Amino acid sequence: MNLQDAPATEALAVRQRIRRGEITGHTSGLAAGCVQGNVVILPQALAADFLRFCQLNPKPCPVLAVGAPGNPALPTLGTDIDMRSDVPRYRVFRNGAMVEEPTDVRHLWRGDLVTFILGCSFSFEWALLEDGLTMHHMMQAKNVPMYRTSVPTISAGPFHGPLVVSMRSFKPADAIRAIQITSRFPGVHGAPVHIGLPRDIGIRDLAKPDWGDAVEVPADELPLFWACGVTPQAVIAAAKPEFCITHAPGSMLVTDLKNSQLSIL
Amino acid sequence: MNLQDAPATEALAVRQRIRRGEITGHTSGLAAGCVQGNVVILPQALAADFLRFCQLNPKPCPVLAVGAPGNPALPTLGTDIDMRSDVPRYRVFRNGAMVEEPTDVRHLWRGDLVTFILGCSFSFEWALLEDGLTMHHMMQAKNVPMYRTSVPTISAGPFHGPLVVSMRSFKPADAIRAIQITSRFPGVHGAPVHIGLPRDIGIRDLAKPDWGDAVEVPADELPLFWACGVTPQAVIAAAKPEFCITHAPGSMLVTDLKNSQLSIL
Repeated sequence: MNLQDAPATEALAVRQRIRRGEITGHTSGLAAGCVQGNVVILPQALAADFLRFCQLNPKPCPVLAVGAPGNPALPTLGTDIDMRSDVPRYRVFRNGAMVEEPTDVRHLWRGDLVTFILGCSFSFEWALLEDGLTMHHMMQAKNVPMYRTSVPTISAGPFHGPLVVSMRSFKPADAIRAIQITSRFPGVHGAPVHIGLPRDIGIRDLAKPDWGDAVEVPADELPLFWACGVTPQAVIAAAKPEFCITHAPGSMLVTDLKNSQLSIL
Repeated sequence: MNLQDAPATEALAVRQRIRRGEITGHTSGLAAGCVQGNVVILPQALAADFLRFCQLNPKPCPVLAVGAPGNPALPTLGTDIDMRSDVPRYRVFRNGAMVEEPTDVRHLWRGDLVTFILGCSFSFEWALLEDGLTMHHMMQAKNVPMYRTSVPTISAGPFHGPLVVSMRSFKPADAIRAIQITSRFPGVHGAPVHIGLPRDIGIRDLAKPDWGDAVEVPADELPLFWACGVTPQAVIAAAKPEFCITHAPGSMLVTDLKNSQLSIL
């Protein structure tokens, strides 16, 4: 074993503890440096439209992997991944209503289910932290504030709805640096989609996020808005698919990929 | 001859016309796509401090080339460049005062003169235009507005003074794109040094630039501030060197380099 192997080994160990039911909560901080992914599992009948939706809207929906129908493995993301058991907590939806929050979905698995893993802001936040930038929501132990915008996504089949963004504020020079850093990570939302001027994307009051917690923007900082993984979640909720499984908030798939591997430069 | 050769050939032709005295004004638009450079020529006794100043302040003073003492050639920037004749119009300073604006400095050349060519915003503006971004000062046929900031440069010997910035405003998404594009051109000022919040760098009124023309910032745009080549000019003026030659404003050295060659990515 060399240093390169260490994180992957740690991610595998984390998934095995999750599979045994020893971890059922948030994955934040587990297998440090490893990519964590948002989970969407849909019947094959809807999967093609959803994949097309993601392709049309890559900033809110960066696809890290798509499973084969009925197959719970994701070999490109990690050794021995079993999507039926390797997420700490799931949410199960029927016709748009959440019906269950199990720690395992073996009992619900079907031969037509297709798994999507979407990139998550944890990875670009890792890159910002590695570069010495700090984020207020972290310092204040809050969830990042998220807002429904007036910017539409491009629809595909039943999937349509507004872009949702997350907000982090920085002093101007750090804002420029944050744009440079996150531009290197297109697989996990990439560069911000907006800076300053929240009203121009339909955000009337930064103090009233639609998801997450309010985090004040100091007078000497600018708000930066990144396309957010809540976008596909909201779009799926609105589409009310016959059947759908997602991760529970904060309870992600821990992959063997290192965040640094997602950097295109 | 292939397409690669064409711009260099055009730049050489432009320099030959300049040398013959057929072009004595602005170089804007000449040898399209070729890098144009700011010119500073100093006695060797001051050249080491000035080079150190540039090295300490690379964003306002990106050095494209330094000549050997007394040698008017700059082989890395172009074929047969003669710094005594190949700039359309020069400014000659003695003890800080401008004494002459000749079209040729053969009569003033000395064995101890060192030429510095510094990158210029024309190159990154070319990259912005190539990407489809427009700039108000160009649309309005004005000079870009420039401002003395409250940000000090790092001094070296007699060279010290505030950072000067140029301002271009964009809608938020274009502002992010402009940061990405200009980040690829560190040799010609690179990414902006500031965005929004002009007071935070000591600019009280955008409508009153210290150099160039006032250009209004529309309500749905953000001002972006780039380190500006006027910084070393102001610093040299304040240092009042015994002898100094620069280009006259807008009357630059046309090099064989293509702007696209300055992109680091």
